[in-house]
Amino acid sequence: MLSLDDCQLLIHKHINEIKLPELPSNLYNPIRYMLNLGAKRVRPSLVLMSCNLFSEHIEPAISVALAVEVFHNFTLIHDDIMDESALRRNHPTVHMKWNSDIALLSGDAMVIKAYELLFQSDKNLLTQLFPVFNNTALAVCEGQQHDMDYESREDVSVDEYLAMIEKKTAVLIAASIKMGAICGGADRNDSELLFDFGKNIGIAFQLQDDLLDVFADSDEFGKICGNDIVSNKKTLMLIEALSRAGANEKGELIFWLNKKEFDRDEKIETIRRIYQALGVDIIAKQRIESCHQNAMDSLNKVSVPFDRKKMLLDFSNNLMHRKK
Amino acid sequence: MLSLDDCQLLIHKHINEIKLPELPSNLYNPIRYMLNLGAKRVRPSLVLMSCNLFSEHIEPAISVALAVEVFHNFTLIHDDIMDESALRRNHPTVHMKWNSDIALLSGDAMVIKAYELLFQSDKNLLTQLFPVFNNTALAVCEGQQHDMDYESREDVSVDEYLAMIEKKTAVLIAASIKMGAICGGADRNDSELLFDFGKNIGIAFQLQDDLLDVFADSDEFGKICGNDIVSNKKTLMLIEALSRAGANEKGELIFWLNKKEFDRDEKIETIRRIYQALGVDIIAKQRIESCHQNAMDSLNKVSVPFDRKKMLLDFSNNLMHRKK
Repeated sequence: MLSLDDCQLLIHKHINEIKLPELPSNLYNPIRYMLNLGAKRVRPSLVLMSCNLFSEHIEPAISVALAVEVFHNFTLIHDDIMDESALRRNHPTVHMKWNSDIALLSGDAMVIKAYELLFQSDKNLLTQLFPVFNNTALAVCEGQQHDMDYESREDVSVDEYLAMIEKKTAVLIAASIKMGAICGGADRNDSELLFDFGKNIGIAFQLQDDLLDVFADSDEFGKICGNDIVSNKKTLMLIEALSRAGANEKGELIFWLNKKEFDRDEKIETIRRIYQALGVDIIAKQRIESCHQNAMDSLNKVSVPFDRKKMLLDFSNNLMHRKK
Repeated sequence: MLSLDDCQLLIHKHINEIKLPELPSNLYNPIRYMLNLGAKRVRPSLVLMSCNLFSEHIEPAISVALAVEVFHNFTLIHDDIMDESALRRNHPTVHMKWNSDIALLSGDAMVIKAYELLFQSDKNLLTQLFPVFNNTALAVCEGQQHDMDYESREDVSVDEYLAMIEKKTAVLIAASIKMGAICGGADRNDSELLFDFGKNIGIAFQLQDDLLDVFADSDEFGKICGNDIVSNKKTLMLIEALSRAGANEKGELIFWLNKKEFDRDEKIETIRRIYQALGVDIIAKQRIESCHQNAMDSLNKVSVPFDRKKMLLDFSNNLMHRKK
């Protein structure tokens, strides 16, 4: 069976073999740049691993894996424009290195390229693969729009937040695993179970991200971030904190949310203290644990021997226990 | 056989039947808005007419026609962001009515929707249709990038300009006609001839647009525009004028190209006078005529009876002789 390293190497190799014209260089150089920006190839590796659950022949999954990776990087280029992010994987974002027009258009070319790669899949599988890919692609757009809409809304609920991260983050992970399974010859029941596994892992992944952003400076984790706190991002923790706070804590929270000028460290420290006092870090951890458990339940039901599942199991355990 | 009116009505009807979710409204309302902004449905009508050349059953061409129309409108939303255009078909552009982030993301959702529509085509035809659609979609991005690159270049050649408008405008028209023919059961030879017909009509269409922008106030045409002159757009006429001008005229041209503050009407009048003195309007007209002739030559060779070609013939003659 393939290891994660095998998968990542295979993806790197095939990504480098994607044929892109030289001209116009302002269209294709940003694509080359983005596709070689030190990505961990999580989603395409999941496609290959999931195919490998059912079959030793992972060849049919490669074009799907590449389509997923190119699509994911397209969404990052466009998200970075919308979020005005200067850095991506510690390098300048495409719109900073070139400009927004070039980032917009090279993103457009990437989504077209993603469909070109998808269409290179086995024609007999395409009828199953295409709707999964397409519905996922639309869901990712919907998730991003909800995320932007929630920035200016004060009354986002926990359910709305979870539905948003499901679309924005989890569904592409779930679809990667499902499409890999389809390429490996899985039946509908197994591919649906794996979709559910991926969806739960994806939600847990995002919640873990939110948690690390706030608490990554404790002994247990790595170094401080706090970007979500600084930008008032409506994470599960903030939503839960606002709903659980008593009058005093709510007043303090709203004071810091509305404060235009503040000392960054002071704001982060204060909000962290409130989060811990209200126990919303525990709530987030419980939610992560429950998603992880749901994921495990689904994976357990997949009709392949346990030892074949070990790769996906290790992978999801690593995601659960990562420190950064 | 279908008339152009029949085609337009059919497209309007089916565009209105495209199912779009209600939420997030900031993602889907801009798409509804753009798809109902008084478009003439040129490209999808060409798909249907071209299918109708070969078959009375145009049903297989409808999803392709819709895919083309949705794709075209996606490019318009993104082009309008890049060109900072305030109006499209006399209505506010999506990024002006909402904002650039919403325009960016709803455009992304539209290109995905276009692929969803394309994939609803007959699976037996899809193997032929998909590469045409995909190569065209990439060419349109390339054309737009060249167009932007040429804004800051002084040495654009006639060939580069023609190659740019071929990609940006003509190829989608050509592909619409070719894909319609494929849906109608045309053989490879006929569908290639029709692609060539469409490409030449598309180039002539854009050159005619350029010409009308400059000369639409003469008795022969409609009312003055002059936007290309005001913005120094490197059209065929400007490129030819710069290459044909003697020292005096070149000096005057460059003076006006570099002048930051000017009277709009004075600039337009002066450049028009220089264009006419150098005969570049005649050169543009000759180029249009030669493209038209090439288009007719290709159409003539298509192996269907002459009377079936009348629709496409009338359509292209109308494009040639339009006044606005």
